[in-house]
Amino acid sequence: MARYPTSLLNLIAIFKKLPGVGSKTAERFAFHLLSWPEKNLEQLAESARTLKEKIRQCPTCNSLIDEAHCEFCDLSRRDTSSLCIISSAKDVYALEETRSYRGLYHVLGALLSPLDGRMPEHLNLKQLQKRLEELPLKEVIIALDSTIEGDATALYLRENLKKEGVRISRLAFGLPMGSSLEYIDGGTLSRALTGRQNF
Amino acid sequence: MARYPTSLLNLIAIFKKLPGVGSKTAERFAFHLLSWPEKNLEQLAESARTLKEKIRQCPTCNSLIDEAHCEFCDLSRRDTSSLCIISSAKDVYALEETRSYRGLYHVLGALLSPLDGRMPEHLNLKQLQKRLEELPLKEVIIALDSTIEGDATALYLRENLKKEGVRISRLAFGLPMGSSLEYIDGGTLSRALTGRQNF
Repeated sequence: MARYPTSLLNLIAIFKKLPGVGSKTAERFAFHLLSWPEKNLEQLAESARTLKEKIRQCPTCNSLIDEAHCEFCDLSRRDTSSLCIISSAKDVYALEETRSYRGLYHVLGALLSPLDGRMPEHLNLKQLQKRLEELPLKEVIIALDSTIEGDATALYLRENLKKEGVRISRLAFGLPMGSSLEYIDGGTLSRALTGRQNF
Repeated sequence: MARYPTSLLNLIAIFKKLPGVGSKTAERFAFHLLSWPEKNLEQLAESARTLKEKIRQCPTCNSLIDEAHCEFCDLSRRDTSSLCIISSAKDVYALEETRSYRGLYHVLGALLSPLDGRMPEHLNLKQLQKRLEELPLKEVIIALDSTIEGDATALYLRENLKKEGVRISRLAFGLPMGSSLEYIDGGTLSRALTGRQNF
């Protein structure tokens, strides 16, 4: 049985580790790399090798930084009265892009999922507690996924934040922009109805 | 405007060069790499860096080799009476997997596409001519894509191979296995009808 050259097989095995990439796509990627100029391959190698050296987590909010200071923790430029709790460092950029929020962030790093063994101690909660005590917060915004894990984590946070005496809010649920009622699932429609607003 | 750390942006730019990968998928890949253990990143870097050193093209058939000898050109093990012409080195493996062919291969490296500037001189035709003279061939099988470029290349090859006095065949067109007539496009159905066989 003919098989791909070993170095190609290695590359295919690595590409298969990417999310949503199966055998066929990994093969396509690997063969595509064969047509790349040496320069691009060198760039890929260099980027992969130095990724973890160059990118660190901010010790305060856990977002990604490649400079000495975290721009999202700059108290002189951010609104220190609100803190937005998110699960992944990637969400910071999605929220920044809305240009509707100027407060602080706190990245949990994961969502609760007892079935997968992800318990409260796997979330960055100690640091969160410390910040809640130090910052002049008026509101904590829970911006987690609208999944079972997101809901569980939001409920857990709400119970634990109650005693802080700050407003606790969660992102609104409802129709996504540009959607048509015909194609909206019952759960979303129900949440949109419950959360209806004066108009 | 917040933007990703520079090293992440570099990685995203590189992933976007992969086929079928847009900004969103490239971002997803890059963030996923952050969660990889150091070992996997090192493997990716090493594979990308050494890919072109380790994989060469067989000087005879142009398929990919990482050893001294090309297993597809081993005249003692292959049927030297038939030669299969394909456009890409990847196709060799797809054909080998069928286990229905034991002959030789010749990789053209590209398909004719005058609009994109790909003319006969960009195909590995000189080497093909040499092999046609040297090998005791009885049949040349044209196994090219059923696209406009594939058809054009097949017609060009047929015209040029006529004088060799060997049987020239091309892969059959028709219904793919497991397909339902209801969803088959008219072109395919028409070719399947023209090529119908006694049953």
